[in-house]
Amino acid sequence: MAEHKVTLLPQGVTVSVPTGALLVEAIERAGLDLNQPCGGQGRCGRCAVVVEEGAVRRRSAIRLSQADLAAGYALACQTVVEGDARVFLPPQEQIERRLVTDKSARPVEVPFAYDPVAEQSLRIVEIHLDPPTLADNLDDERRLLKAVEARLGMGGAAAQRPGARGSRLGPALRVPLLLRRRLGAELREGEWNVSVVVETDAWSSPRGLWRLIDVAAGEVRPYGLALDIGTTTVTVYLVDLRSGEVVDQAAEYNGQIARGEDVISRIVYAGKGDGLEDLGALVRSTVNKLIERVCARRKVDAQRIYRVTVSGNTTMTHLLLGVPPGSIRLSPYIPAFNQAQPVNAFEIGLGVNPLAGVDCLPGVASYVGSDITAGVVAAGMMDTEELTLFIDVGTNGEMALGTRDWMVSCACSAGPAFEGAGVVCGMRATVGAIEEVWVSSETLEPTVRVIGGGPARGLCGSALLSLLAELFVTGVVDRSGKFKLDGGSSRVRMGEHGGEYVVAWADEAATGRDIVITQVDVENLLRAKAAIYAGFSVLASSVGLDLKDVQRVLIGGSFGKYLNIEKAIQIGLMPDLPWERFGFLGNTSIKGAYMALLSREARAQVLLVAEKMTYVELSADNTFYDAFTAALFLPHTEIARFPSVASLWDEANASRGGRGARGALNGKGEPVGTHDGGGA
Amino acid sequence: MAEHKVTLLPQGVTVSVPTGALLVEAIERAGLDLNQPCGGQGRCGRCAVVVEEGAVRRRSAIRLSQADLAAGYALACQTVVEGDARVFLPPQEQIERRLVTDKSARPVEVPFAYDPVAEQSLRIVEIHLDPPTLADNLDDERRLLKAVEARLGMGGAAAQRPGARGSRLGPALRVPLLLRRRLGAELREGEWNVSVVVETDAWSSPRGLWRLIDVAAGEVRPYGLALDIGTTTVTVYLVDLRSGEVVDQAAEYNGQIARGEDVISRIVYAGKGDGLEDLGALVRSTVNKLIERVCARRKVDAQRIYRVTVSGNTTMTHLLLGVPPGSIRLSPYIPAFNQAQPVNAFEIGLGVNPLAGVDCLPGVASYVGSDITAGVVAAGMMDTEELTLFIDVGTNGEMALGTRDWMVSCACSAGPAFEGAGVVCGMRATVGAIEEVWVSSETLEPTVRVIGGGPARGLCGSALLSLLAELFVTGVVDRSGKFKLDGGSSRVRMGEHGGEYVVAWADEAATGRDIVITQVDVENLLRAKAAIYAGFSVLASSVGLDLKDVQRVLIGGSFGKYLNIEKAIQIGLMPDLPWERFGFLGNTSIKGAYMALLSREARAQVLLVAEKMTYVELSADNTFYDAFTAALFLPHTEIARFPSVASLWDEANASRGGRGARGALNGKGEPVGTHDGGGA
Repeated sequence: MAEHKVTLLPQGVTVSVPTGALLVEAIERAGLDLNQPCGGQGRCGRCAVVVEEGAVRRRSAIRLSQADLAAGYALACQTVVEGDARVFLPPQEQIERRLVTDKSARPVEVPFAYDPVAEQSLRIVEIHLDPPTLADNLDDERRLLKAVEARLGMGGAAAQRPGARGSRLGPALRVPLLLRRRLGAELREGEWNVSVVVETDAWSSPRGLWRLIDVAAGEVRPYGLALDIGTTTVTVYLVDLRSGEVVDQAAEYNGQIARGEDVISRIVYAGKGDGLEDLGALVRSTVNKLIERVCARRKVDAQRIYRVTVSGNTTMTHLLLGVPPGSIRLSPYIPAFNQAQPVNAFEIGLGVNPLAGVDCLPGVASYVGSDITAGVVAAGMMDTEELTLFIDVGTNGEMALGTRDWMVSCACSAGPAFEGAGVVCGMRATVGAIEEVWVSSETLEPTVRVIGGGPARGLCGSALLSLLAELFVTGVVDRSGKFKLDGGSSRVRMGEHGGEYVVAWADEAATGRDIVITQVDVENLLRAKAAIYAGFSVLASSVGLDLKDVQRVLIGGSFGKYLNIEKAIQIGLMPDLPWERFGFLGNTSIKGAYMALLSREARAQVLLVAEKMTYVELSADNTFYDAFTAALFLPHTEIARFPSVASLWDEANASRGGRGARGALNGKGEPVGTHDGGGA
Repeated sequence: MAEHKVTLLPQGVTVSVPTGALLVEAIERAGLDLNQPCGGQGRCGRCAVVVEEGAVRRRSAIRLSQADLAAGYALACQTVVEGDARVFLPPQEQIERRLVTDKSARPVEVPFAYDPVAEQSLRIVEIHLDPPTLADNLDDERRLLKAVEARLGMGGAAAQRPGARGSRLGPALRVPLLLRRRLGAELREGEWNVSVVVETDAWSSPRGLWRLIDVAAGEVRPYGLALDIGTTTVTVYLVDLRSGEVVDQAAEYNGQIARGEDVISRIVYAGKGDGLEDLGALVRSTVNKLIERVCARRKVDAQRIYRVTVSGNTTMTHLLLGVPPGSIRLSPYIPAFNQAQPVNAFEIGLGVNPLAGVDCLPGVASYVGSDITAGVVAAGMMDTEELTLFIDVGTNGEMALGTRDWMVSCACSAGPAFEGAGVVCGMRATVGAIEEVWVSSETLEPTVRVIGGGPARGLCGSALLSLLAELFVTGVVDRSGKFKLDGGSSRVRMGEHGGEYVVAWADEAATGRDIVITQVDVENLLRAKAAIYAGFSVLASSVGLDLKDVQRVLIGGSFGKYLNIEKAIQIGLMPDLPWERFGFLGNTSIKGAYMALLSREARAQVLLVAEKMTYVELSADNTFYDAFTAALFLPHTEIARFPSVASLWDEANASRGGRGARGALNGKGEPVGTHDGGGA
């Protein structure tokens, strides 16, 4: 594929991208960031840039006036590169960032207020000792500790006089055994000049117990690691604790996938034989590979990683720590723990400094883990009084509703349909996956976009979602999701298990077989979207509110990255709210872990969220089943909840001369008959 | 050998002992205790008992009047059983003990004031929980912790509100990972009724961080372990933490002996290859065997041992913890650590509850370890204003001088001569060892006492000591320790390496060879005693005092158990003080560990001793060599320091008509000539 040079101004950075890349991808490749509040759907107009010169194609120009277009404006998320180009990024569109100064005087971007290392309950002090002599024969450890205590302003001999009643009878500074074993060698190797790393584990109070976690000759540059353990994907951020910068990041499939794709199958596996140890070893191996990768790339000694902050769903956290998760899947669905408790890296075999504190952030319940508490904080829910709906659709669907003063949460087993699993031609969002489908309402012929641009291999989650919407809007399926086989298109046909729609013919497909979506697939997708929407409904009604009152819908998780909000509303997955209320935040779990790694304030917020969030166990909630059943229609049994879809439906139905389900609606917009209703 | 029944009154206990056993052995066998301030040497008269009936032989009746003897009094330590007997123990001679009431209402003897478990920074609470339900779905850990916090009077939600600035961001109660992994299973096994063991490690202040170390169904009876790791012998006390009672004890040779008999050879070995790991494994194996033995005997689950207090010399402590001891043996003789730092049992592989806190008591210097700090406390030095000399002669000779307000200490490498090593016919104090020797001043024929009563195999430390004194007093050797071959006895002869004395002829010995003490042996013993006495001298002069000012000499260690004080003074090993100033305390190291295990006060004392004790490094002290050289004579170059020996010498010399070294003394009692002087 041809490569083109895109020069970005005013920075003057030139990058090379293949034909068909989006401008936004070129900008990302250059390491620059653009604000994309709508998540790159071409709706908000905030990513407008000026194409000063070059060959580009505007897929969509919504939100741009004729004057804008004449001036060269284009939406970076909707503009395809077809040749060399020079593009100007208007300054107002750059993400607002706090600039902090690194020791190397290079400006580093940290998108939130963070604590300097000295306030992170982690201190690095350089110590110069007098070597011992026969006359000054203090032991190595005490010699060092005295100097460290003096530097940290600890001590006060009187207060610690061991004889005094009620006084501490242990040392003020702890030296873990692993460090004690090499203390003498380090001191002598450094010729009595060393750097000492001291911490209070798990952010105990400033007056808590401090411990030495490293002693090394020379200067020590401290690193931290943010770690998001997803059921499917594990992500790490390598963070320079001085500058706060993410110096590198990497992600990898969770090695546990080989033992089951969802948390339930992992829990079952963990309960058999040495399953728990096996799953622990698998995720450890994944994490350690990622650590090795980022450390090798940045030439960072992994021994200099002194703190690890972990977010993940409750099952993933149990498995990382080697805690049996069995009770999570059996009623009443109780995890062994939700709270954070300090752990040393060596206890769970992480490939960082063995004494690094591993801080598994606190969760709320068996199915609302620290990925959500961290995500809620990363989403800024703790900073707003606006009624916010936060949703993280990964392998599970978890959501929270509230403001900074109160929050309710729940989890619905949406199933993996939206990840392409349990669907005949489903696949993950990798090369060869169809990621978007448009269906012509005239011909019912599809237009597809394939990741990587080659022949299609299957349908990933975003394609399934847009396809369901298109099939519904074009009347290929009725409001209950049933295929209508009377449309006259060869694309819609009777398959082995009922109706199906052919997205790509065998000769267009990399698989050599028709790529289809079947009646069973549609029903799976309907159940998935119904579960999520029912979750929203139950959360809102649990606090006496209506989904219409929601002021912000913040979508995290890998799924959110590809979610087309228009289509999500059309199928009734998302509530029918103005598009500008939706925000796409990407991986909020790792972002929250990153923030908690660096900021005492952020960690306090995560703890507060974990403490205050009320968990609604849907399986114990009588209203959930009704809400779920009502949501099994397209977009919903009560179409009045979706006025924008209802009006679209009206238009489409009118233009198609009766095709679609309009005939089945009574005056209230409610369907007549049962779930298998529909059809004129 | 014939067995005899000895009935002890008023307790009415009858025990069976063989012919020749001492009464004190019968009393010990009955589990009763007698005060023996002189260590069983028949000098103090405190162990006097009344033989109401039976066949006994009084070996010595010093301290008893004719009236006493007529009334049946006998010294238990000097009276041999030769038939059945009935013996009354006068109540005033029983050791003063504090009686405490055990749960089983059986009175238990603990010889010091100790803390109830609740004040030992260790709490055991029984918790009854409501099982979780869908409506009450708190996680296992939080459910338990809330109940434990309530029971311990912790919490106070406001104070711990995570959002508050400066507040603790970690949990109030810590749950170590090892426990977390089995928490859920234990709760369910106990059907939500469990005993929980909570502790603050290393006796942190009462407001310190508490952690759970065990959760178990049913009632939990807590045990502790006092552990003394000697270079030669490892001793354990299994302690019921509720009653304070030592429920069992056991001792065993330190498995490290196979890698070297003294600390220096162990340090050298530890520095080679995997020597450190090997030595760690050996001592661990010894300790674990002892733990298994006492637990099996008392049917105690070793998992119920929740705290271990360890005393030992600095090298032994390093090796137990796996800390390289290399710098201990190289000038300026610096240990890696002296202070106590909390360690979990699992970190060093002890066969007790893996989360038990292992508290290695603090030492002072490379050659004054926690065996001395614990010993000093056990000896009661912290309770007296009297000038006290504490000495622990084991494989090394360590000593401390002072009062409760100040202390100085030092260590002298006496060498292992007094343990029977480095001596031609030396052996440890086991069956077959000659343990005491008397030499007739008329015939120079010896009388010996053999451990176990059979034929002799060699000479143990106490025999060597008494033999050296006898050879000196009878003039077989002169004041410089040289054999005088002109005495006319076949026992004194020229051997391969100079003069020697035959203690047992080959046909009397189990080895079939003459048991002798040679010139080289005598010189080894002289150096050993000179080193120890020189240590005393340097300590005293370092604080401007004279050894005559010493009011108490307290002798700990296994050697002290067999030390004959009269003979120790005769050879100039001990200062010439009235016998009643000497006290024999047995294994003070394990006693101190036992006290620190149970008593916050005792532990505070050990810490205070470790902090306040001034260590005198003899190799850096100019006066030591002079003091050592002066002490290489019998009893000393300045015989005026030993007035009782000088007068004995006068008498003996007079009665022997000039045999002995008197002729070589000038008017001041100082020898004329050099070290090889002597002989008339």
